[in-house]
Formats: sequence, structure tokens, C-alpha cells
Amino acid sequence: MGRRRPALCYAQSGGVTAVINATAHAVVRAARAAGVRALGARNGILGILEEELVDLGRESQETIRGLAHTPGGALGSCRHKLPDPDDDLAPHRRMADVFEAHGIRHFLYNGGNDSQDTTMKIARGAERLGRQVTCVGIPKTIDNDLVGMDCCPGFGSVAKYVATSVAETTLDLESMARTSTKVLVIEVMGRHAGWIAAAAGLAAPPGGPHLILFPEIPFEQEAFLKAVDARVRRNGCCVVVASEGARRPDGTLLSEGAGRDAYGHAQLGGVAPLLAGIVNRALGHKVHWAVADYLQRAARHVASRTDHDHARKLGEAAVRMALAGESGMMPVIERVSDDPYRWRVGKIRAADVANRERRVPRGHISRDGFGITERCRRYLRPLIAGEAPVPYRDGLPVHARLSGRTVERLLPAWKPPATGGG
Amino acid sequence: MGRRRPALCYAQSGGVTAVINATAHAVVRAARAAGVRALGARNGILGILEEELVDLGRESQETIRGLAHTPGGALGSCRHKLPDPDDDLAPHRRMADVFEAHGIRHFLYNGGNDSQDTTMKIARGAERLGRQVTCVGIPKTIDNDLVGMDCCPGFGSVAKYVATSVAETTLDLESMARTSTKVLVIEVMGRHAGWIAAAAGLAAPPGGPHLILFPEIPFEQEAFLKAVDARVRRNGCCVVVASEGARRPDGTLLSEGAGRDAYGHAQLGGVAPLLAGIVNRALGHKVHWAVADYLQRAARHVASRTDHDHARKLGEAAVRMALAGESGMMPVIERVSDDPYRWRVGKIRAADVANRERRVPRGHISRDGFGITERCRRYLRPLIAGEAPVPYRDGLPVHARLSGRTVERLLPAWKPPATGGG
Repeated sequence: MGRRRPALCYAQSGGVTAVINATAHAVVRAARAAGVRALGARNGILGILEEELVDLGRESQETIRGLAHTPGGALGSCRHKLPDPDDDLAPHRRMADVFEAHGIRHFLYNGGNDSQDTTMKIARGAERLGRQVTCVGIPKTIDNDLVGMDCCPGFGSVAKYVATSVAETTLDLESMARTSTKVLVIEVMGRHAGWIAAAAGLAAPPGGPHLILFPEIPFEQEAFLKAVDARVRRNGCCVVVASEGARRPDGTLLSEGAGRDAYGHAQLGGVAPLLAGIVNRALGHKVHWAVADYLQRAARHVASRTDHDHARKLGEAAVRMALAGESGMMPVIERVSDDPYRWRVGKIRAADVANRERRVPRGHISRDGFGITERCRRYLRPLIAGEAPVPYRDGLPVHARLSGRTVERLLPAWKPPATGGG
Repeated sequence: MGRRRPALCYAQSGGVTAVINATAHAVVRAARAAGVRALGARNGILGILEEELVDLGRESQETIRGLAHTPGGALGSCRHKLPDPDDDLAPHRRMADVFEAHGIRHFLYNGGNDSQDTTMKIARGAERLGRQVTCVGIPKTIDNDLVGMDCCPGFGSVAKYVATSVAETTLDLESMARTSTKVLVIEVMGRHAGWIAAAAGLAAPPGGPHLILFPEIPFEQEAFLKAVDARVRRNGCCVVVASEGARRPDGTLLSEGAGRDAYGHAQLGGVAPLLAGIVNRALGHKVHWAVADYLQRAARHVASRTDHDHARKLGEAAVRMALAGESGMMPVIERVSDDPYRWRVGKIRAADVANRERRVPRGHISRDGFGITERCRRYLRPLIAGEAPVPYRDGLPVHARLSGRTVERLLPAWKPPATGGG
């Protein structure tokens, strides 16, 4: 069984996004249109190693359609480091066997730079073993830090969520500032690159934020406090958007060693409470703080149309490229013009993306290091443009869940390697 | 000037909400329809004491219409404790003078239980001074803890935001749980009452949360850890929604003395990082945590239609009641039936609301203390029903801001009292 028609296998990897399932949806539709079976691997490449596959063509139409507006990774994702085929061929042989048993000729891996490293390893492993599998990467990451492309699917929606939330909370803070809270610190994701923090800048002016802290700009406490004080004096209040990756001049994360709990245990992360404490003690203002964490990357209810369209088109392009045998490649978004915004799908080698990252250039950050420039605004604006509404039922967004049915196993169980994670 | 037609004065007090400006919008429209001038006081009663008034009838139509979808308090709010007229009549005389100078016959105060105490004091002060001012309260609070009414405007929208965010992040967590984060702790507002935390329960099943911590149920660490462990074993992951008001069996807030920063300073609040640390140390799971803070109450972009309609209708009713001379009263939402949901506007004495609070009844909380009952669901469901979409421009919600023009002052400056805040 499973050999009737050639199949492709799609899998999701790394941190999920609000629109990664829009890519999944597009892959299933494009595969169907091309007469190819679409299988999905559960939990990224673990689903291949463990032969845990889903026949996406057998899920109901309603479920597949629903993926287009469901956040998270419907197939499950993973963080799993695959060994280089030169070091350990065993998992590669296992994957090739699973591919062969299920007639899988094409592997599509939807992930960030670590995942594209995995895509390349799988391609090289298959080649070493003399198996025919076309491996195509599909970019995705809320961090927007992949090189070789204009932007990454997932980022535009986080950017829209953050800019919207900052605009809204700035209005809230302004209302309260006369007699209550004067400073609000909002922590956003982006451990190595400040793209998400930068997106908050789209909310201003008016509507804040008044200060942005980027991982790219070393944090100097005195300059920060002076800037907060100046904003409170001028605007009556100050909204600070801090990247979780904000770091000291020596390169250590602000959140490292941020504090100890009542029992002396090191606390888990949290740049926002740390900064709130610093401001409160130095300036005496009442301070509130928020940490958006997964809320920001799961917020499909306020996704960007542009982002959603990118995610969809890359899924379609990846299927085309896989069927054309373009192994080791990945489709990417290329910008044609800022205003009016025009873009197209191009392609690059997945190897060029693997294990590299793109940070916010200095020219996108204002001279004082606390804001974004017009050049940055021009870049970001189209990425949050347009809405991609979700259907609601009983007041809540409608989400799709796969049936949970898996394809019958054809091989003996795989003994997972002793090591893993990463 | 300012004496041409009788005027009403509307002001906003305490913590703001996503829909308090929808009430403002309704007040302005109802006043206009009744031929009454609508003035607004800046920063609650401070704007009366300081004679800082806005002629809402002179704001552009676009601005007034825009209030209907603008979060925060457009006039500015305040936390300011007014003395009892028996103790100190001076501020009451000042307010009465400002009312008289501007032809203000009606005062509408939009706030929670503290604010309705203020409404009553102003009414008594005016009476003591022999002045004719009709004082009408308008309820508002995200905490949903006012007595004498079915629900409070502002709550339904926070409830919808929280339930939506929990449904979305549960999908995110489920995707990651196999090899990465297994527990997510989301902290929500509600220092004394767990209504907001309860609303998260609407997201389940499916879609989490798996555990809710209420201020009404004493936190027992061992039982909590056992419950988290059981959920992780059963579901592969666990979403915990914790009220900021979660407290120990001795009644102290969990967030009190939660921790110290690297310099030994007491940290500001944060139940979520505290619980995350507890779970991580005891069970060894990777834990993420989020604190929604002002994001939840400012999230007009995902407001509830029911809530928005309540806010609007109460504004209209308050104007009618003021013009009918019903001083000391406030309009409230009364529920007629759960399903189909039917409601009407009733009225109660503002004094009955002042300084009291309504907590989540035990019958709304499941036996194990970690979830909500069907009775609670029946109560909550209609409150998050329906959407109240916002217009977007360039990818961001369009918000209205008042022009900043104030009415010409007619009286000498007011010397603020030495004390204040509260």
C-alpha cells in the first residue's frame, strides 16, 4: 500500500507561527492539483524517523480549509538536531526507508535557519544513499532573521500584533498617567534580532512606543533612565518596548541573572520586570509591565494579509519546485517595490540560509538607538498591511485540528537515538 | 459664555477598558439628541476641580464616531479620592462652582466601585451646598466585580481577548510540546475576583486552558504541581491561566515577596514567572510564561459585540436618567435569559455599588478548584459573543484622539489638595 501515486511529505519545524498552517494548507491544495499525495510528518522529522505520518488528502475539506486560519503547527513541530550524514548515516537510512516505504519522492521542510540545515543534511544523506528524494525548504520564522530573502512568513503577523497592541496600550497608559501608571514596559520576542521590537515603532506617532530596546544596541542603564525621564516629562508617560534579546555592553543578555526568587533560585527570563524595577527605583514612577511571549506569535486573530499571502504562495511554490526536482532549494519572498508594495516569489539555495542570521541594520535604528528610522518604516509597513480575518463561532475564533488518524506503519519501530534535542 | 444651554459633564475614572469610549460616544450622541451640551472633564474629577473641560459637541464628527472603536479613556482617567463632604466641603464647593459657571446640571461618572463612592459624595456635597446637580453613575470595570448587576462593561471584551489568546496559545504549545516547551503560564488581571481567569475556561475543550488559578481558591503548591504533572502526562502539555490575585492559604498574594532582583531589590509583581519557576524546578519541564497586563484590557481589536452594546446602551440610559433627575442612580445590565441571550437596562442606587465587590461564586468553579463549571460557562458565553470590528488603515486599527482644545476657564485656578492619589 502507499505506493499508488508518488507522494510528498510536508513537515513543520522550530518555533511555530500564526500563518505556518496557511503554508500547510497551500501545500495540500497544490499537491492535490498536481495529482500528488500529500503526507504530513508529525512533530517535524521525528514523524519521519518514527514513521508517524498523516495522509493530509484524507482529512476533511473543512479541516484543510480551516488550517488557513489556525495558528500553531497543526502537525506538531520539533527541535531536533539531525547528525551530519558523514558522522552518522543511521537516521538518514531510516528516513530514506520511510520515504521509500510510503512512496515519498519529495520532502518539504517548513522552518527557520536550523531547520534548513536539517533539510540540507537530509538531501545529502539521501544522495549518499543513492535515493531519489527532492528536498525543498520553506522559510518560516517570526524572528525575520533568515538571510537571502526580503522577509520571513510569520514575522508580518507578529509585527502587526505588536504594533497594534502597542498602539492600544499607549492609549490606555495615556489615560492613566495623570495619577497612576506612568511607564509601561512591554517585552517582545527576538533573542538575536530586533525586528519584532522594531515593528512596535510602526505604532508611533501618535500611539507610542516612546522607547525601543534592540538586541543590536547595547543597553546602557544611565542613558535608558535619562530617556525614560525625558519622555515622561514630555508626554506624561512612556511606553518602553524591550526585545527579550536586549543585552549589556559586554554582550550578556539583560535577562540572564535577572533575579532570584524568594528561595534564592535563579528566575526564568523576563527583561520587562527587570526594567520595570530599574525605572521604579530610579525615577519613582508607578510602572506596569507585560510579556507577550507565545501570545504574540499565536495571534492569528490579528494576522497580516501580506504575511498570510506570503505563507500561502511559498507553500505553492515549494510544491512546484519539488515536482520540478529542485532539491536543496527554497522559495523566498523578493520585494519589487515598497510603495506600492509589490513582491514576487524567487528561490535560493537552502544551504545559504542555514545557520546564519540577519539582524536589524544600524540604518534602520534611529541615531539615539531608541527608535526606528523612516527607512525601517518603509521596509516594515507593507508587511503588516491588510487583514486576514478569522471566522468566529460563539465568540471565539474557529480553529481546525487534524483528525489524529495516522497512516498505517509499514516498517519496524525506530529506536530513537540516545542523544537528541537542540 | 457656556450658559446658553444646560450642559451635562461626563468623566471617566479608574482603570480604563476597551469599550469605555463606546460609552462616551453614546453619551455625546444622546446628549445631542436631547439638546443638551456635552462637556467632558479631563482626568476624571480632577478635570472638574481644575476646570479642565472639553466641549465634546465641538469635536469633529469623525472623532466622536471614532471613539466607538478606540480603547483607553479618551478624556483621561484618574484615581483620586475625594473627601467626604462632612469632613471637607472645600473641593465640593469648588466642583459646584465649576458646574455652575459652565451651566452643568448633570454629572455622569463612568467608573468602578471606588468611583461610584465618589459619585455619591459629589451628590451629597451638592445637596449640602443646596446646588442642583443630578449625579448619575455609569458602571465600568474589566474586573466584573460590581454588585447589583449581571456584568460590567469592559469585562466581556477582556474575557474574549483572554479566551481567544488562550485558545491560540494552546495550539502553539501543543505544537512544541514534543521536544520543547511543555508548560505555559499566562497571567491575567483580577486582583480580587477571578472573573477574567474564569473566562479563559471558555477556550476549553479543546484549546485549553488545562488549569486555572483563581483568587477565590487558596493556592496549594503540592496540589498544583500534581495537577500540572497529570495534565502533562495526559495531554503532553499544560496551559496554566493564573489570576494576578492568586493567593496563599494565609491570604497573602502569591506575587507578594515573589522575588528579588540581582541587587536584592524586591521585584515588581508577577505570578507567572513565579509559577514558571516552581514548575520548572519541581517537574523539570521547559516552561514559558506570559503576562498580558494592559494588553488585555486595551485590546479593542478583539472586543466583544455584547460588551460593546452594553457600554453603548448604558451611556444612553445614563443621559436619559440624568435628564429625568434620577440623582444617585446608575443604569445596569440585567440578564433576562442565557440562551438565547436576552438582556435589558435596569437601574440601581450607586450607593449600593460603592466599595463592595462580587467574587466568583464557588458554584462557578469546578470541584478540584482548577476549572469552571457548566453554570459558569452559561453565564460567560453570551458576554464574549459577537465581534465589534475596528477599521484599519495601513495595517493598524484607526483610533480617535480628542483635539486637545479645552473650554475657556471662567474661574480662578484651583489649588490642588496636598494629599491625593488612592
